[in-house]
Amino acid sequence: MTPTTTLSVPRLTEMVTGILADAGLSDLQARTVAEVIVAGERDACKSHGIYRIEGCLRTLRAGKVQGKAEPVLTDDGSAVIRVDARGAFSPAAFAIGAPVLADRAWELGIAALAINSCTHFSALWPEIEVLTDQGLAALAMCPSYATVAPAGGSRPLLGTNPLAFGWPRPGKPPYVFDFATSVAARGEIELHRRSGSPLPEGWAIDGDGAPTTDPASALQGAMLTFGGHKGSAISTMIELLAGAMIGDLTSPEALDFLGSTDLLPHHGELIIALSPEKFSAGRPGAAFDRAERLFEAIVGQGARLPSQRRFTARARSLAEGVDLTADEMAGLERLAQSVRT
Amino acid sequence: MTPTTTLSVPRLTEMVTGILADAGLSDLQARTVAEVIVAGERDACKSHGIYRIEGCLRTLRAGKVQGKAEPVLTDDGSAVIRVDARGAFSPAAFAIGAPVLADRAWELGIAALAINSCTHFSALWPEIEVLTDQGLAALAMCPSYATVAPAGGSRPLLGTNPLAFGWPRPGKPPYVFDFATSVAARGEIELHRRSGSPLPEGWAIDGDGAPTTDPASALQGAMLTFGGHKGSAISTMIELLAGAMIGDLTSPEALDFLGSTDLLPHHGELIIALSPEKFSAGRPGAAFDRAERLFEAIVGQGARLPSQRRFTARARSLAEGVDLTADEMAGLERLAQSVRT
Repeated sequence: MTPTTTLSVPRLTEMVTGILADAGLSDLQARTVAEVIVAGERDACKSHGIYRIEGCLRTLRAGKVQGKAEPVLTDDGSAVIRVDARGAFSPAAFAIGAPVLADRAWELGIAALAINSCTHFSALWPEIEVLTDQGLAALAMCPSYATVAPAGGSRPLLGTNPLAFGWPRPGKPPYVFDFATSVAARGEIELHRRSGSPLPEGWAIDGDGAPTTDPASALQGAMLTFGGHKGSAISTMIELLAGAMIGDLTSPEALDFLGSTDLLPHHGELIIALSPEKFSAGRPGAAFDRAERLFEAIVGQGARLPSQRRFTARARSLAEGVDLTADEMAGLERLAQSVRT
Repeated sequence: MTPTTTLSVPRLTEMVTGILADAGLSDLQARTVAEVIVAGERDACKSHGIYRIEGCLRTLRAGKVQGKAEPVLTDDGSAVIRVDARGAFSPAAFAIGAPVLADRAWELGIAALAINSCTHFSALWPEIEVLTDQGLAALAMCPSYATVAPAGGSRPLLGTNPLAFGWPRPGKPPYVFDFATSVAARGEIELHRRSGSPLPEGWAIDGDGAPTTDPASALQGAMLTFGGHKGSAISTMIELLAGAMIGDLTSPEALDFLGSTDLLPHHGELIIALSPEKFSAGRPGAAFDRAERLFEAIVGQGARLPSQRRFTARARSLAEGVDLTADEMAGLERLAQSVRT
């Protein structure tokens, strides 16, 4: 049995922040990126946890993220708040924009945060939860790299384009979903390739645009969107709203810009916050009560709410700490050494 | 060969408006509902065309729509505009709210229109196109009747919950999609039942929650969402944003309210308008040019943009008129007679 080390969430945050700061990130970037990484570990989302540190450092060494850049907020008092990340990691830009976004959503009912010119890092749900924690509903989306074919197409064009949404539940963890609009993540196809197992049908096409279940052919071809032409339309919408509309790169442009999917992508992100209290003001029935009845009916027929597994893991991690294997601890130590020299 | 009658779009609009006005709709309701119905015929969407008049009249006769109600707009200068339809058909409420929504989106960058207490009628794309015609991007969504099971569930709870989006294309018809978040429309299952053909797998479950391809069992059971748990999450989001958040009925509440899916549903609708010019202001590259490059790349690899079939039919209808069969003309005449007496 592999011996494990149990670290408290604050202790792990401190370690990861230290590694990122030593590697050359500003205090704000180191802290906000570390918080997202530790949120992944805390919620048992290993694919968004400490395993991601290496990709951050690789992107930094390649000069494709500006570790010392300070994101700049522009606020003209309208419902659109802009943060120019100036090449910094996205969580730093979000940290600067989120308080203004929340205030504006409370004031106007709906508001949007456009993050530009960031190196986009990691899942959208940590950002969604910052807003649901303040009683706001929120939508977030961004492009990615061109690795997904549009429905009826034959070549990579769209990104895996995640879409995330959250609804605040008073006294409970929020209703949150966050998923790629591709059928599967690129990492899952890579895992199939390594294990030599075929892909499920409908995941990918080969370099000639023909359906394939061979992982290597899929990696040479393109992934497909979830839900056929409907998912493809939603993915295209994300390119338009969180790329073209906010004056930032679409997925094909993001791939051209870096020339590789091995580094973290450079593009923008769109976050929309909505105030249920403002939207439902003066209407009969309480918005939050009505939502709870819907959730009860979903759970009551045996279906699950998204993210429940994460929230269960989180409760355990906050109470008992995060368990890391000896290999994981050694990896952290190696990373810490590598950035100290 | 069935003899056909060709009517100009204005002439058909006049006829349908006359039928609805004679049936007891206010001038505004008659005109706006007729415009949506004629838009369906014009765009060769027969399922949203004159065939729908009968459902409107049935709902009116059942006392479930207030034909003379005048929707009331509330505008506090924020980014949320509200129209209380007071039981009128939704197109009348949209007609009153849309100009204020567009102005506010131009001013603030993003704004929302909450339509409450309407009898919801027909497709969302006509509303989306009113906004794209003014250079705005737009999202629209609404609940429906509880006929769809959530992923992992066993009983009807969610509606077919349509989601529509549009992006303005200068000098061209817009990029528009509008689809149910159920795999199929209820009408399609009914058509399979009538023709005695089995349903494709994945469309529905029976009354015990087990997968079925039998249309009759499906109508006793529940439809499924598109895209598995991802489509189910999006459908749930629509219940939350366009039901609970705006202080209006969710799909199970809408079904309880009417007790039948034979009449048009009573609930609300949410429309969000966004100004690409405001969102992209000061950024390098033009938002609309960037979007056009994306569309060219989609079409360039043999994929289609949504709604192109509609736009082709529209161009023909506007130039040459709308063809109605002798049966359709006789049906219109019967309806006209029935409301005159």
